[in-house]
Amino acid sequence: MCRLTLIRVAVCTTVFLATAGLNADEGMWLFNKPPTRMLKEKYGFEPTADWLEHIQKSCVRFGRGGSASIISANGLVMTNHHVGRGQMQKLSTKERDLLDTGFYASSFDEELKCSDLEVSVLWKIDDVTERIRSVETDAMSPAEANTARQKQIAKIVAEAEQDSELKCEVVTLYHGARYHLYSYKRYTDIRLVMAPDGDIAHFGGDTDNFEYPRYCLDVAFFRIYEDGKPFKTKHYLKWSKTGASEGDLVFIAGHPGRTRRQNTVDHLKYLRDVSYPSALAAMWRREVQLQTFVARSDHNAQIAGSDLSGAQNGRKAITGYLKGLHDPQILRDKIAAETELRKAISTNPEYRDKWGDPWTRIRKAYGGFRGFRDRYNALEGGDAGGRSSLMRIARTLVRLAQELPKPNEDRLREYRDSSLDGVYRRLYSPAPIYDALEINRLESGLSYLAEKFGGDDPLVTSVLANKSPRERAAELVLGTTLKDIETRKRLVEGGADAIAASTDPLIRLAYDLDPQARALRTRYEDEVEGEELSAYADIAAARFAVHGETFYPDATGSLRLALGTVGGFEEDGKQIPAFTNIAGLYERHELRHGVEPFELPQRWIKHKGDLDMDTPFNFISTADVIGGNSGSPTLNRRGEVVGIVFDINLYGLVWSTAYTDKQARTVHVDSRAIVEALRKVYNAKALANEIVGR
Amino acid sequence: MCRLTLIRVAVCTTVFLATAGLNADEGMWLFNKPPTRMLKEKYGFEPTADWLEHIQKSCVRFGRGGSASIISANGLVMTNHHVGRGQMQKLSTKERDLLDTGFYASSFDEELKCSDLEVSVLWKIDDVTERIRSVETDAMSPAEANTARQKQIAKIVAEAEQDSELKCEVVTLYHGARYHLYSYKRYTDIRLVMAPDGDIAHFGGDTDNFEYPRYCLDVAFFRIYEDGKPFKTKHYLKWSKTGASEGDLVFIAGHPGRTRRQNTVDHLKYLRDVSYPSALAAMWRREVQLQTFVARSDHNAQIAGSDLSGAQNGRKAITGYLKGLHDPQILRDKIAAETELRKAISTNPEYRDKWGDPWTRIRKAYGGFRGFRDRYNALEGGDAGGRSSLMRIARTLVRLAQELPKPNEDRLREYRDSSLDGVYRRLYSPAPIYDALEINRLESGLSYLAEKFGGDDPLVTSVLANKSPRERAAELVLGTTLKDIETRKRLVEGGADAIAASTDPLIRLAYDLDPQARALRTRYEDEVEGEELSAYADIAAARFAVHGETFYPDATGSLRLALGTVGGFEEDGKQIPAFTNIAGLYERHELRHGVEPFELPQRWIKHKGDLDMDTPFNFISTADVIGGNSGSPTLNRRGEVVGIVFDINLYGLVWSTAYTDKQARTVHVDSRAIVEALRKVYNAKALANEIVGR
Repeated sequence: MCRLTLIRVAVCTTVFLATAGLNADEGMWLFNKPPTRMLKEKYGFEPTADWLEHIQKSCVRFGRGGSASIISANGLVMTNHHVGRGQMQKLSTKERDLLDTGFYASSFDEELKCSDLEVSVLWKIDDVTERIRSVETDAMSPAEANTARQKQIAKIVAEAEQDSELKCEVVTLYHGARYHLYSYKRYTDIRLVMAPDGDIAHFGGDTDNFEYPRYCLDVAFFRIYEDGKPFKTKHYLKWSKTGASEGDLVFIAGHPGRTRRQNTVDHLKYLRDVSYPSALAAMWRREVQLQTFVARSDHNAQIAGSDLSGAQNGRKAITGYLKGLHDPQILRDKIAAETELRKAISTNPEYRDKWGDPWTRIRKAYGGFRGFRDRYNALEGGDAGGRSSLMRIARTLVRLAQELPKPNEDRLREYRDSSLDGVYRRLYSPAPIYDALEINRLESGLSYLAEKFGGDDPLVTSVLANKSPRERAAELVLGTTLKDIETRKRLVEGGADAIAASTDPLIRLAYDLDPQARALRTRYEDEVEGEELSAYADIAAARFAVHGETFYPDATGSLRLALGTVGGFEEDGKQIPAFTNIAGLYERHELRHGVEPFELPQRWIKHKGDLDMDTPFNFISTADVIGGNSGSPTLNRRGEVVGIVFDINLYGLVWSTAYTDKQARTVHVDSRAIVEALRKVYNAKALANEIVGR
Repeated sequence: MCRLTLIRVAVCTTVFLATAGLNADEGMWLFNKPPTRMLKEKYGFEPTADWLEHIQKSCVRFGRGGSASIISANGLVMTNHHVGRGQMQKLSTKERDLLDTGFYASSFDEELKCSDLEVSVLWKIDDVTERIRSVETDAMSPAEANTARQKQIAKIVAEAEQDSELKCEVVTLYHGARYHLYSYKRYTDIRLVMAPDGDIAHFGGDTDNFEYPRYCLDVAFFRIYEDGKPFKTKHYLKWSKTGASEGDLVFIAGHPGRTRRQNTVDHLKYLRDVSYPSALAAMWRREVQLQTFVARSDHNAQIAGSDLSGAQNGRKAITGYLKGLHDPQILRDKIAAETELRKAISTNPEYRDKWGDPWTRIRKAYGGFRGFRDRYNALEGGDAGGRSSLMRIARTLVRLAQELPKPNEDRLREYRDSSLDGVYRRLYSPAPIYDALEINRLESGLSYLAEKFGGDDPLVTSVLANKSPRERAAELVLGTTLKDIETRKRLVEGGADAIAASTDPLIRLAYDLDPQARALRTRYEDEVEGEELSAYADIAAARFAVHGETFYPDATGSLRLALGTVGGFEEDGKQIPAFTNIAGLYERHELRHGVEPFELPQRWIKHKGDLDMDTPFNFISTADVIGGNSGSPTLNRRGEVVGIVFDINLYGLVWSTAYTDKQARTVHVDSRAIVEALRKVYNAKALANEIVGR
């Protein structure tokens, strides 16, 4: 009964928002805690352990945040074009812009090795909650407990990695009420196999992003290599022969990045009033600056296109999240659910003694954070560097020299042994660095500082060194030696002495700023993160006690399973169908005069007559996803690929804080369009055959 | 000696920044106080009273802020395409988008009457400083003195208008050290004669805006009518037979809107740290929102194109102003000049007694303003309405009902008798109002409120009325009756009773917000404007005493005369020539693949062979201008038209706070390109003949 209560609360929210008759497909479920009962009751489907294990081991975490899957016995990996975009940009040259022209390697030999990509497959999950929580004592403050837990996490990870070939991480679930040890197989020799032309991958561009109907071939293929050969595996997803149909149950396995569904009302108000408006302001600013930069020349468009589409995508996403929080109904529902839980705690003496009032602790922690969040984000979050690659490299070098001599568990978490592979891979990446873009990024970061804190602020005057942001950015970028990878290696080898002796202007700047940045980080970890983890863990424990442990944890970037139904939605009185087809692509192209972002690549014009116009192109479902799920395979009951997730519609952005299936939909590329395009437009028969398993 | 001191300070600043050998052409001079001595000494040119009067009476203030000139005996008016853009948009229909296709009336009959445009010609200037300052007493606080002056101004204007047919305004010069009564001839029957295609008027779009080289035919022609007939006048500018050449002295007569060159250092820092960053943030935000809206459909692009280009233009301008204030050299020069003047006051007991420390008064006034400026701008400045036309109409109706019953001099200044013509013209304008754009604007304004003040702020919750910004905006726009002009008229006739009884949702909202808006305005006028006027008037008086009254006042939107030399500049080691030509237009079109914003209209492609490729297209000069000068005629020594100002380059934006001729340049359309295009591309022979006087 208790178990259903929470579900009831959640479903009530949904039913209020939903068209009557539709059922809620809410949930980003753990693979070791799947929604078996819900699937059985609602869909008459029972996932077996083998079914779950096979999907889990066929899924891939792509780089640091994307989703992907293995779809052939030869280690072929499918993800979105926009997920692989950064790698394609790095593989591009002045002469050959892969983002523009696409790419196809018709044999293994022609596949292009990525400079700094790693992918990983989740192999094993262990609950380590007890081991981690055991280091806490009642006498500890939340900050002390947080530090103790962090050290224990480092120890557990180090031990686990010592015992196996796997790479490990501890995933914090239910905001700290549960800790799971995830062990991954990692692969670092990844090669580009095929990418369609940019114009068809993101047809409609920013204009159609988060909209529906859509017509995007947002897909790209890579291959995992092991020991210089294509990776052989039995865990790969088979391609559906029929594809999906209206009303079908579909599954999505991927890495939803972050949801805020268990946030307290005060925390949501902090997001609504402080965090999102401030993030949006930064994105508007950067989007306009990048638009201006990109428009100046074809070359600028090539080197900064990814920055721009990232800014646009982030802006649309946060606009949607914020709209959700400005929807009075959503907040009313949140308040009602929270009030109910708080009452259940405050009226039960045992509960009250155990957990006190964690809601107030969260409110206070964020109240305090308001006072230093801008400086924290500027110095520790990297806003001051404007996402300059060189600035990031300088900071990494400075911190590596300070952190490496420390015992593993005393280091900043991103410099622990378990993370060093990735740190070095990024640090020594041969990806090109463009002065013009670096100056633009750094000027943006430096002028941001001046705009935010004022021209007379000591931080601002010290960083600018009596120059304008533009002059200072140019001086740093043109004066640094860090563009040379060997120089970076020498600095790493030289350690703290080499850093202290370096006259490189970016090293000096990063070095000078580091004490302030560290102080802000400590303050954040103690006063905000520690309090927050402790309070949310208490709320989750209270929720377990009151409602039972049946719900899924908020997304944290780890592998999850979602489920949903293929189906359209109603908008302004019109029914938007679930599927688009290839004919619709050409219609939209013509309606928008074929002008950017509705241009079609030449080969799509040329091969129009060859294509089956009725082939389904994109479709939508009610499956529950969020940013990070891009590239997730869409599967049928048999675990076969029927599509790939690449977007949600605007209404779906509210999923950041609350699930509804009224109009919110996940957007997929249909598996049939992928094969049709590979065969008829790209003449990629070998790849198509590998995919469909012939 | 004293007189030269100030010039020396100014020139020193300039020489420091300028390439040695170039002379400074600084100044936006009053027509009744021209730089006769400077012109004579530097250029050997002596402007006669007739020369000045003829130019003054040939110049036109276009609408509320643009510059223009009369260039034929039949009242032909020349301005920029971008200045006339709003009118063209209002004259466009769904079927005929004048901004896209251009327009040409080959006879008077075909000229299109503008719905709500007025232009005015400055006819008479009288110094009324003594009359205005005479109402102040030592016992008055600055706020009281400000109120007393405002009343006196209303009285003087009313008296002046009673005695003549002219429309009058008092122009505050030298920040209140001088008041001049400007008397204008006003014309309200204005018709569109010719506009080129949008793509050639703003060739290069936002990408090339504020850049150089340029290739824009940013010109449009209107005609003044009087009593239904073309306006006959002897004061019009003749067209030069030869055009301008490198090194020529040129004059610009127009309406520079606002400069901050006499601002105190603290005031500049307020602009740098508070005002400009906040204005820029609003512009980035709006630009992205409008980009998104415009990209959705051709119709959206048509109805919101002006909003978007306005946002882009403003953003570039303020970016430039802010860059100027982030230039340490400029601030150092300002500090040095201010320190010198402050010392001259503080070390002279008579001066010290007379003026005290006005610098500190300004610092305090702006320090106080920081605490309520966001609310002031939201409620009184209109940010909350997101520039919605309907919201503006509602506010006007509410205030008219409250203000009209009061004695003229007690009214808010924009509702005094002298301004009512314009108020009614705008209020009853038949220009189309588009629901989609209005909802977009209002949603933007309402969500701005929520972002700025937080979702629980009482102002926000009362304005949103428990709806999301989008829902509330739609409800207000779709529910209002104010789209109907007759309804507006009935509300004006019904006065306060009609407003009180109205159930129109926008009237109710404007009515409910009005008390708060008025309170903020009073506070602003008392605590900031009054203090500022009083302090700046004291500083100006001190400067007159120390340096003599030889300098020009900061720009305030009134008619000014600037002068300069036609010439290029150096950028990244390359010399940028002063002139571009028509050949360069076609080259840039090809280099940028003819893609928007580098598209050329079909007729420009078709008539390429007919054009003389060597015809000068745009050119640059050192003449001192700022926003508001757009559309100003460029004249040679004989007062003949050699071009029209339409832009400054990025370096020129610093002119907002300090003049330099190092790289800063004004950008003009060459008179020869105008005639060449009219004859060869637009087949507008009659118009070309009228212009060149044949």
